[in-house]
Amino acid sequence: MRFRTNINKSAGDSVEKFEDLGFSKVDFDREKRTGYPEVIYGEGKTAVQIQQIMTKLIEKHGKVLVTRVDEEKGRALIEAFPLAQYDCTSRILQYGVAKQQYGGEVMVLCAGTSDLFVAEEAAITAEWMGCNVKRLYDVGVAGIDRLLAYREEITKASVLIVVAGMEGALPSVVGGMVRRPVIAVPTSVGYGAHLQGLTPLLTMLTSCASGMSVVNIDNGFGAAYQAALILKLASEGVHHEDPVS
Amino acid sequence: MRFRTNINKSAGDSVEKFEDLGFSKVDFDREKRTGYPEVIYGEGKTAVQIQQIMTKLIEKHGKVLVTRVDEEKGRALIEAFPLAQYDCTSRILQYGVAKQQYGGEVMVLCAGTSDLFVAEEAAITAEWMGCNVKRLYDVGVAGIDRLLAYREEITKASVLIVVAGMEGALPSVVGGMVRRPVIAVPTSVGYGAHLQGLTPLLTMLTSCASGMSVVNIDNGFGAAYQAALILKLASEGVHHEDPVS
Amino acid sequence: MRFRTNINKSAGDSVEKFEDLGFSKVDFDREKRTGYPEVIYGEGKTAVQIQQIMTKLIEKHGKVLVTRVDEEKGRALIEAFPLAQYDCTSRILQYGVAKQQYGGEVMVLCAGTSDLFVAEEAAITAEWMGCNVKRLYDVGVAGIDRLLAYREEITKASVLIVVAGMEGALPSVVGGMVRRPVIAVPTSVGYGAHLQGLTPLLTMLTSCASGMSVVNIDNGFGAAYQAALILKLASEGVHHEDPVS
Amino acid sequence: MRFRTNINKSAGDSVEKFEDLGFSKVDFDREKRTGYPEVIYGEGKTAVQIQQIMTKLIEKHGKVLVTRVDEEKGRALIEAFPLAQYDCTSRILQYGVAKQQYGGEVMVLCAGTSDLFVAEEAAITAEWMGCNVKRLYDVGVAGIDRLLAYREEITKASVLIVVAGMEGALPSVVGGMVRRPVIAVPTSVGYGAHLQGLTPLLTMLTSCASGMSVVNIDNGFGAAYQAALILKLASEGVHHEDPVS
Amino acid sequence: MRFRTNINKSAGDSVEKFEDLGFSKVDFDREKRTGYPEVIYGEGKTAVQIQQIMTKLIEKHGKVLVTRVDEEKGRALIEAFPLAQYDCTSRILQYGVAKQQYGGEVMVLCAGTSDLFVAEEAAITAEWMGCNVKRLYDVGVAGIDRLLAYREEITKASVLIVVAGMEGALPSVVGGMVRRPVIAVPTSVGYGAHLQGLTPLLTMLTSCASGMSVVNIDNGFGAAYQAALILKLASEGVHHEDPVS
Amino acid sequence: MRFRTNINKSAGDSVEKFEDLGFSKVDFDREKRTGYPEVIYGEGKTAVQIQQIMTKLIEKHGKVLVTRVDEEKGRALIEAFPLAQYDCTSRILQYGVAKQQYGGEVMVLCAGTSDLFVAEEAAITAEWMGCNVKRLYDVGVAGIDRLLAYREEITKASVLIVVAGMEGALPSVVGGMVRRPVIAVPTSVGYGAHLQGLTPLLTMLTSCASGMSVVNIDNGFGAAYQAALILKLASEGVHHEDPVS
Amino acid sequence: MRFRTNINKSAGDSVEKFEDLGFSKVDFDREKRTGYPEVIYGEGKTAVQIQQIMTKLIEKHGKVLVTRVDEEKGRALIEAFPLAQYDCTSRILQYGVAKQQYGGEVMVLCAGTSDLFVAEEAAITAEWMGCNVKRLYDVGVAGIDRLLAYREEITKASVLIVVAGMEGALPSVVGGMVRRPVIAVPTSVGYGAHLQGLTPLLTMLTSCASGMSVVNIDNGFGAAYQAALILKLASEGVHHEDPVS
Amino acid sequence: MRFRTNINKSAGDSVEKFEDLGFSKVDFDREKRTGYPEVIYGEGKTAVQIQQIMTKLIEKHGKVLVTRVDEEKGRALIEAFPLAQYDCTSRILQYGVAKQQYGGEVMVLCAGTSDLFVAEEAAITAEWMGCNVKRLYDVGVAGIDRLLAYREEITKASVLIVVAGMEGALPSVVGGMVRRPVIAVPTSVGYGAHLQGLTPLLTMLTSCASGMSVVNIDNGFGAAYQAALILKLASEGVHHEDPVS
Repeated sequence: MRFRTNINKSAGDSVEKFEDLGFSKVDFDREKRTGYPEVIYGEGKTAVQIQQIMTKLIEKHGKVLVTRVDEEKGRALIEAFPLAQYDCTSRILQYGVAKQQYGGEVMVLCAGTSDLFVAEEAAITAEWMGCNVKRLYDVGVAGIDRLLAYREEITKASVLIVVAGMEGALPSVVGGMVRRPVIAVPTSVGYGAHLQGLTPLLTMLTSCASGMSVVNIDNGFGAAYQAALILKLASEGVHHEDPVS
Repeated sequence: MRFRTNINKSAGDSVEKFEDLGFSKVDFDREKRTGYPEVIYGEGKTAVQIQQIMTKLIEKHGKVLVTRVDEEKGRALIEAFPLAQYDCTSRILQYGVAKQQYGGEVMVLCAGTSDLFVAEEAAITAEWMGCNVKRLYDVGVAGIDRLLAYREEITKASVLIVVAGMEGALPSVVGGMVRRPVIAVPTSVGYGAHLQGLTPLLTMLTSCASGMSVVNIDNGFGAAYQAALILKLASEGVHHEDPVS
Repeated sequence: MRFRTNINKSAGDSVEKFEDLGFSKVDFDREKRTGYPEVIYGEGKTAVQIQQIMTKLIEKHGKVLVTRVDEEKGRALIEAFPLAQYDCTSRILQYGVAKQQYGGEVMVLCAGTSDLFVAEEAAITAEWMGCNVKRLYDVGVAGIDRLLAYREEITKASVLIVVAGMEGALPSVVGGMVRRPVIAVPTSVGYGAHLQGLTPLLTMLTSCASGMSVVNIDNGFGAAYQAALILKLASEGVHHEDPVS
Repeated sequence: MRFRTNINKSAGDSVEKFEDLGFSKVDFDREKRTGYPEVIYGEGKTAVQIQQIMTKLIEKHGKVLVTRVDEEKGRALIEAFPLAQYDCTSRILQYGVAKQQYGGEVMVLCAGTSDLFVAEEAAITAEWMGCNVKRLYDVGVAGIDRLLAYREEITKASVLIVVAGMEGALPSVVGGMVRRPVIAVPTSVGYGAHLQGLTPLLTMLTSCASGMSVVNIDNGFGAAYQAALILKLASEGVHHEDPVS
Repeated sequence: MRFRTNINKSAGDSVEKFEDLGFSKVDFDREKRTGYPEVIYGEGKTAVQIQQIMTKLIEKHGKVLVTRVDEEKGRALIEAFPLAQYDCTSRILQYGVAKQQYGGEVMVLCAGTSDLFVAEEAAITAEWMGCNVKRLYDVGVAGIDRLLAYREEITKASVLIVVAGMEGALPSVVGGMVRRPVIAVPTSVGYGAHLQGLTPLLTMLTSCASGMSVVNIDNGFGAAYQAALILKLASEGVHHEDPVS
Repeated sequence: MRFRTNINKSAGDSVEKFEDLGFSKVDFDREKRTGYPEVIYGEGKTAVQIQQIMTKLIEKHGKVLVTRVDEEKGRALIEAFPLAQYDCTSRILQYGVAKQQYGGEVMVLCAGTSDLFVAEEAAITAEWMGCNVKRLYDVGVAGIDRLLAYREEITKASVLIVVAGMEGALPSVVGGMVRRPVIAVPTSVGYGAHLQGLTPLLTMLTSCASGMSVVNIDNGFGAAYQAALILKLASEGVHHEDPVS
Repeated sequence: MRFRTNINKSAGDSVEKFEDLGFSKVDFDREKRTGYPEVIYGEGKTAVQIQQIMTKLIEKHGKVLVTRVDEEKGRALIEAFPLAQYDCTSRILQYGVAKQQYGGEVMVLCAGTSDLFVAEEAAITAEWMGCNVKRLYDVGVAGIDRLLAYREEITKASVLIVVAGMEGALPSVVGGMVRRPVIAVPTSVGYGAHLQGLTPLLTMLTSCASGMSVVNIDNGFGAAYQAALILKLASEGVHHEDPVS
Repeated sequence: MRFRTNINKSAGDSVEKFEDLGFSKVDFDREKRTGYPEVIYGEGKTAVQIQQIMTKLIEKHGKVLVTRVDEEKGRALIEAFPLAQYDCTSRILQYGVAKQQYGGEVMVLCAGTSDLFVAEEAAITAEWMGCNVKRLYDVGVAGIDRLLAYREEITKASVLIVVAGMEGALPSVVGGMVRRPVIAVPTSVGYGAHLQGLTPLLTMLTSCASGMSVVNIDNGFGAAYQAALILKLASEGVHHEDPVS
């Protein structure tokens, strides 16, 4: 065959913990190891590849989440999986529901309307993983009163995901208001000196607010994943022990 | 006076929530707002300035933590505060103890011997805030068996702080082994293409492991602070509610 | 002479508008052209060079400002000019007073104690140029209540200079509170991802607050200079005319 | 609904100061707070979203400005708002006129023909906000005589907005000629070492001319906004008081 | 001719060691000098240009490899050379086979499914140059057990090419497991702080594993070329001599 | 007019030295000042704008050069100016010929076939300005013998323009071979760590060869312009005088 | 103890494969795994720490190499280990000799005198690991004849380590001359646009020569380590097998 | 010898064209090849090393130039060579005089007093190479009248070296005034966004003035070297020939 499109067989035979699809080793063991089945990162995969991996994961776990799915692939995949749901803003495709439902609440805040695609990726991921989610959108610091109007709600959240593009100042202000962990998400929304999101990323990393950590630009999924792990830990509870030192 | 060294009086009179030392507004309200008294960042402050702020905070809260204190200032300050403790590796000065003691455990891992100064800043901060801390040092990925030898301990931790300089790969490997939140801390240890810590910072931000977030270069304190907030939340517990959407 | 320390004579003879000291052309015309005599940037000049230029400028204008003068040079120069004043925080040496005194008020805010050296450079420069200056220091956004406590004073200022290191978020918040021009000054105070001040610089440039512009890192002088030009314009008044289009 | 396109309801109910459109909180209070109604940043918003926000703002304030509107959206919106005006060069859509008309004059200069889109964004914004605007275009420093031919006009302006791409040297030369505030705007016009506008941005920030500040790359709007605030202050006048120190 | 499309004749006449096609000097001497005929870098060349150079090289050497050939050009070229083979994943067009076949084995590993295009460029190049190649794909460090499951195979390889995008941590882990040279290849697969591959590139350069070197982003070809040179040397053998010092 | 496409009239009336087309001030004086009429940079201008400026310049000088003209505009313009010539590789449109013809010779070298578009921009510009040009293409340093084969021709050139993408090493090697000025031109040809031409730009700036200077990425025009000024000076000759010091 | 200098005990007990010194886990297993005992990176370790680790490694392996040892530590350590040898240029401390001695030859080339410290780190490391080493120094490309004078020796080497600062062009030229693997080492020698070695690093990564890979800035050790692994493989020989695909 | 300070003997015996000092190959052939004897870059060499190379070059050529010599080394070397001359500003040590003296004139301009060390490196180098040099210092663009006062002198120069730190705008203005080649030299004088000279470097590379090229930051020597080659060419004259194409 002079015009070859498939990949040569991989060296490793499939072993029990994962299945080798040639182009991918589907990691069945991940749920046991990390508490959740593998999530599919849709960017750079064809609808057909996604469908194949989804099939394997649904067989094994009964549910699956796919992120970064564009509308065209989204339509194709809900054809293939009538029980799946696709959301245009977040570009998330979800199938099945979380077995667990954690106590507490994840609040997702975002600074501007254009940051919604990241905020919704976070919100929907957190919901799919079993969290209660509250949304508070378009509360950027240049109109600080909009944010202050919700101060009480903000302080009630168990974990806060704060999404911001432009100068990325919102997490610093929120971080100084609460006694709970804040996960900051910079977005690629901005222009010029914004450097495709590097500026809010650096802003958030150098924040003078304590209790805050940062994920990659536009990585709403990653922030939600960590938030869910925190609620999971809090829901399971921790034992009081004597300090070691 | 032709050779002036003091600062002109600030516009604002001190109000109840903070006290105006001229060069600083000591934030008494922070404990109520965020759960902990203000922590002093020692770099760029003189021993005398630190002593003044410490005095105010000890009066108000009975305890205080100062980070980034070099040895010379450290010696001066334990002269002034005989009940304080100074640690050379982490450059932390602490006074008083946490009222609370949380359940669960923070594990602090680091990749190499030279990352210890950051790892210890994290460990001592977490202890001071009321966490049980386990240390696992010098387990960088180039000798993966050292890390794997501790796999069981690693999976038992409630929150993991993973400190690494050079290429900063350790958090990705640890992140794939556990079901708990991982906070990654890049360090300034390295040379050349390491770019004073920017390389491990970028590495950690682009990690393919889920459930992980990142703090600034060498910011062991920040990682510990967030870890403590997580254990605090988990110790207080969260209520099971119905999901909102 | 085998070991040469002086500079060869410059091609141009001194002309009336400036005087050629060999290493410098002192610009006497600048006051007429821009409204103020030349200000000396002290960094990289010896005390002797500064003294020579000061002598020329004092002869011509009766006053002079020198910025970025370290303590050692400061002591030498107040020896030479007993009527001069030196300030350790701002590292400014001033001689003589402003003829004019503008109406309105420049407010100088800064985020943290370590930003004082820049804030004071701005404040003292503005005073020397004839402005009333109000100082509001250590009001960073991570403790937003300290800032909000001064909201009324803030909205009364005619021009605001907002100085911040770390993530540089303060100008965005202030910019959203006022109807007056805000000049933002990033400082070199921070570490790691702060990149010696590039991060707050980029933050301020991408701010979502309107009515704000930015000067170079640590350039308190430049911010004050522009603020004074604004008050000068406002003090002189502008004529109401019909719009052109 | 398996294919979802709308956003989940936000946590906050609309309160009096702003109205919650779901994807946006329209900030009615901004005019009171900052002197001008909210301006819509058109990039990344659909024509429909812009139309909705415009409707709200016109109801409330009788006028609105939208920036970064491409031609296609521009045509759609002047269909919807027959009283609006759209300009292809600046990509600005405006509706209604400024109530106020300030004295003095904003001069907008630009270095080259290709910088016009930014210069016109500045000029039209300033006019809409109530300023008299003079334009002086294509006067880059490589042909210094073109600039010098207008020296008298330049020194008469109350505020100067200087727009330049390529090496961005024009503001330094203009800044040295005038006694009025200069706001410099770098543009994205250039190639190679120009780095999409970072080079003129850095050039302007390190200018040796005093009295100059800088806004983000291509941000003609931001420069005009600050210029208008300056003329507003100057038109309202400032009171002469005794200096504080 | 007013509309010119061809290039003026070059100054140099063709000499024996290379042939001047006007736009290219085909380097016939390279096989003698470096052991392999020239390889054609297809990007930025037209199908017609590639065909011309291929013809010359096939005449001289009986074989040729072309990298970075998109599908459209690929189809055109297998039309022109029915004995050629085109592969869609690696975008490689090959003609003829290696005369030599080296002992030992090159193992090509990659971290994720999306890195396949680079891994296959490496694998097919190495095969064409006469190496035995084993593939081990989708074994990224976030699921370390997949990698460890193949530990025995990995330690048997003579040279290892390790391809990774995202944070690029895989080569460090592999490097610590083996006693053979590791060539690391960063890929452009990632987003945000990944900086189009700069992040894994920097990661690999600062790796704490010894015995590892790095090639340019996505340069699977370059890694394979060096791997083949190593196997060639090993197949030819080296003489044991006394040490010099 | 609600949909406006033209620019408001500029503040300045046209003066004798240049003509104001509204969007451009055509600089008639440049030939007198710098020895050549204005050259039109075609990028970002419409065919109509170029045509208008060309008309003015042809009226005044009888010749004109336009760079960075894409094929579509090229076809339109040779329709409008039947005496013009367009070249597809360099994207240059030229009209008329140099009055002067200088002695000596400019040699244009380039490293690879893909650098031709820059090399030809240099070569054609130099010819249009009155220089004899020799071309030596595809002589990159990885096949050093191709370069060495032309050593004699190379040392005969009066000025050398050396164009290279990728690692940009060619100018260093050429610079060490000759006693004449070398002007180095980095190109945007490369990928990955090549950073769109920044890498060869930096390479050339840090070259250890003396007698070499550098122009912007892809700026073949700029290199040729300086080369022509050098030949012009050499053709006009310089007077021998006594040294000043 | 209020002034603490030692580290808290690590969580993990020492296990057989490595020994826990508290601040370091000495990796005894590395020789078995990778073919060589652990090498100590001296930078950032005290003489005392180095001495402790050396003692453990000498006990176990009878030999040890320490890199990046400054002169002061060097003197202290040869006091402690009278059989050790210290070299001032490379800053290497070595103890014991290689058991094995490989056939073939590593050639170390460097571009300039100031690159010697890196070249010697490579040369001495390679010797200590059992390689014959030939040195060829100060053969930078700006005087290409110096390099060409050694062409025969260069083509005889089995592996080439090419060290260069400034623009880093030497490896490209050498790479085009030989049929053997080239390992390029950029150095921190240069100024300005050299960016502390980033420029030659990028140069080498984008080289158009095939068969070349790159290590970190100044990493002579890393290059030598890989070169030794290549000679080791070549000395052990590889079996001829049938190709897999 | 356990504490080694000298370098192992190099592989190559000295050949006629250069002499091998072990740490350096002194390039005697360079004068023949490039028109000038080798110049010594003093940075990073000891006084003893410089003395050895100087001795060889003086024997061969009767003259030598050493750049970047600090005062301490300068004093040591004029002890050793009583006929040498050392200049503190430029840090140049020179011995002997140029045989040739070219016609025409190099003008060296600089923007500010702090750029003198670079301007003088250029001026003294050019003089040593046989050029008449005119100096015009402290004529930065923020006081454009100082520059314009010398317009006639400027247009008379044969080649112009324009040195500037800060924003580096001076070469653009000068370039637009003259019909002669301009060589721009950025300096490391500035702070903050100046990025140790990267900003004026980028500024100069993107200049809109034609006929200008750029050398590395602070590289006054390199600019002068090229200027001298240009005057040499002009002094030797070029033959008028027919154009080739």
